[in-house]
Amino acid sequence: MVDYIGVSDVQRLVGAQGPAVFIERLAAEIEADYRRWDAFDKSARVASHSPEGVIELMPTSDGQLYSFKYVNGHPKNTAAGLLTVTAFGVLADVATGYPLLLSELTVTTALRTAATSAMVARQLARPDSRVMALIGNGSQSEFQAIAFYRMLGIRELRLYDVDGAATAKLAANLAAMAGMEDLRVVRCASTQEACQGADIITTVTADKRNAVILTPPMVRPGVHLNAVGGDCPGKTELHADVLVMPQVKVYVEYAPQSRIEGEIQQMPDDFPVTEIADVLRGRAPGRTSPTDITIFDSVGFALEDYSALRFLHQLLQADSDHRRRIDLVPRLDDPKDLYGGTLAGAARRMPLRRAG
Amino acid sequence: MVDYIGVSDVQRLVGAQGPAVFIERLAAEIEADYRRWDAFDKSARVASHSPEGVIELMPTSDGQLYSFKYVNGHPKNTAAGLLTVTAFGVLADVATGYPLLLSELTVTTALRTAATSAMVARQLARPDSRVMALIGNGSQSEFQAIAFYRMLGIRELRLYDVDGAATAKLAANLAAMAGMEDLRVVRCASTQEACQGADIITTVTADKRNAVILTPPMVRPGVHLNAVGGDCPGKTELHADVLVMPQVKVYVEYAPQSRIEGEIQQMPDDFPVTEIADVLRGRAPGRTSPTDITIFDSVGFALEDYSALRFLHQLLQADSDHRRRIDLVPRLDDPKDLYGGTLAGAARRMPLRRAG
Repeated sequence: MVDYIGVSDVQRLVGAQGPAVFIERLAAEIEADYRRWDAFDKSARVASHSPEGVIELMPTSDGQLYSFKYVNGHPKNTAAGLLTVTAFGVLADVATGYPLLLSELTVTTALRTAATSAMVARQLARPDSRVMALIGNGSQSEFQAIAFYRMLGIRELRLYDVDGAATAKLAANLAAMAGMEDLRVVRCASTQEACQGADIITTVTADKRNAVILTPPMVRPGVHLNAVGGDCPGKTELHADVLVMPQVKVYVEYAPQSRIEGEIQQMPDDFPVTEIADVLRGRAPGRTSPTDITIFDSVGFALEDYSALRFLHQLLQADSDHRRRIDLVPRLDDPKDLYGGTLAGAARRMPLRRAG
Repeated sequence: MVDYIGVSDVQRLVGAQGPAVFIERLAAEIEADYRRWDAFDKSARVASHSPEGVIELMPTSDGQLYSFKYVNGHPKNTAAGLLTVTAFGVLADVATGYPLLLSELTVTTALRTAATSAMVARQLARPDSRVMALIGNGSQSEFQAIAFYRMLGIRELRLYDVDGAATAKLAANLAAMAGMEDLRVVRCASTQEACQGADIITTVTADKRNAVILTPPMVRPGVHLNAVGGDCPGKTELHADVLVMPQVKVYVEYAPQSRIEGEIQQMPDDFPVTEIADVLRGRAPGRTSPTDITIFDSVGFALEDYSALRFLHQLLQADSDHRRRIDLVPRLDDPKDLYGGTLAGAARRMPLRRAG
């Protein structure tokens, strides 16, 4: 039997500790896994493109556990009342190849993306960062807000979205969060206004095109850019000039993938970037001056889903009252007799007939 | 909600018509899909190798439906009471990216492999074929026997396996099948003996190595070879000399994949092969003489799993009394408000705290 975590299970497992604590604990798992970067099989995702969107498989393994995520991206879905992005994933035992866990990853991807953003920002942003611009107020924005409030100490959020309804939704959700009374939320009329005075700029827009959300005049010295939305070929958020501003340092998850999918797809193949695993392991510098401009060109890497699946599995195993299982794999008395253990009874009841 | 087909569901869906009819109907689905070969995205599988085995993802799409299969191969599993091969898969809607069906594919892969073998043999074997050697009497062997009995009219099976217990298991399972009383089953002492008088030779052995199950003296003119077991790098069953015997014609599913995984991995990159889709569409000849030796160098292709998933989904949809669903994807009133629709309640109950 294979463990199963559906949407209702994630709601329960996250709800038991609250999203903020869940994100912080998950960030610690992701950080620990990035610190053992060399243990992981790394390959770019396998994408199937169509006119409407993309379906991707993102596998990885550390030699003990294997995981993959299925994730789609279909920008027009919301018009039909559906999510732009849905995801699920599987954790498996490398020694036997057996799947251990099937889990929803739609909610979980939002949590792990925010956890990764905040974990990286804790390495790269100025420690005194208190003001964050949040550009793009869609599905991911609340998760980013919670992560940066809790893990970075952000106390002013400056919101902007081309869709005012999205900003209203985010503001309402933020206002309803208990325990965040000291968070100042400012609705801005433009990206430029949102970026005024920001220590951190998070871009998490959804348009599948080469957009220009940020230009150099909006990016002051010392800022940390958390560029989350540009994450596939043809989808970017930063003007290329931002990437070559003085004192800019660009950080990525896995360089070969980011050169295809990230903001740096706009740059030459030898454009200098630093993998965050190297910062975490002390092999490369992070921020070296309060005036450095650090950019996390985030696209989402399979390791983060691996960490999330393993973390969810641990939580589920400790929650035995609610543990659900599905019969995804046969259990046989004789593993060499697949037919006898599964279909022999049916075949006796339904006699074969000759070819007609 | 996503439809779910577990092992018990496959037992019910296959049992309702019996494995023979199921295989024949599935073969018709697979054949129809191969006839529209150009509609499919084709890519080699994505493999993650470990010392104990391999875990693979096999995606494909025809622009309407997307499917992938997860499958492992771990030869030492049986010593621990586990299956060597397990599998599951997903069918998804290309237009929205939403998963439609999660299904077990361990039993189903055995059924689709046998269906494909028989479908291809019907194209390539001599129409008067009645005697089949079945070399390798493990998990796949009953399925091959049923498929060739029903779809080819095989009435004598000549069994051999290095493991006599496997042959005994197969013989017992065959004896218990109702309606196959006119099948003659002969247990042989060697591969050579099993091949005597055979019109079709099916090899379905499991060793993960370059084995030499068949050599030229065992292969008489006019025979059809259904070579199922050699299906990954380093795993072959035929002596290379068999592939260059006079009047040999080699057929494959998808040439780029078969050159890596099939018997033809032993041959130069330009070794001539014919894709079965071309035979089915009348673009390439099949057998042209009763003395041709036709070889189906089968490795298993993602299209066959796609066909199986779609067929199972149709059967499930017609079986509404037993249709099971899982909450793998969130349903939201407002698709742009993932947080509000899933975690807002939990966040209100569990107040955020400042970073410690």
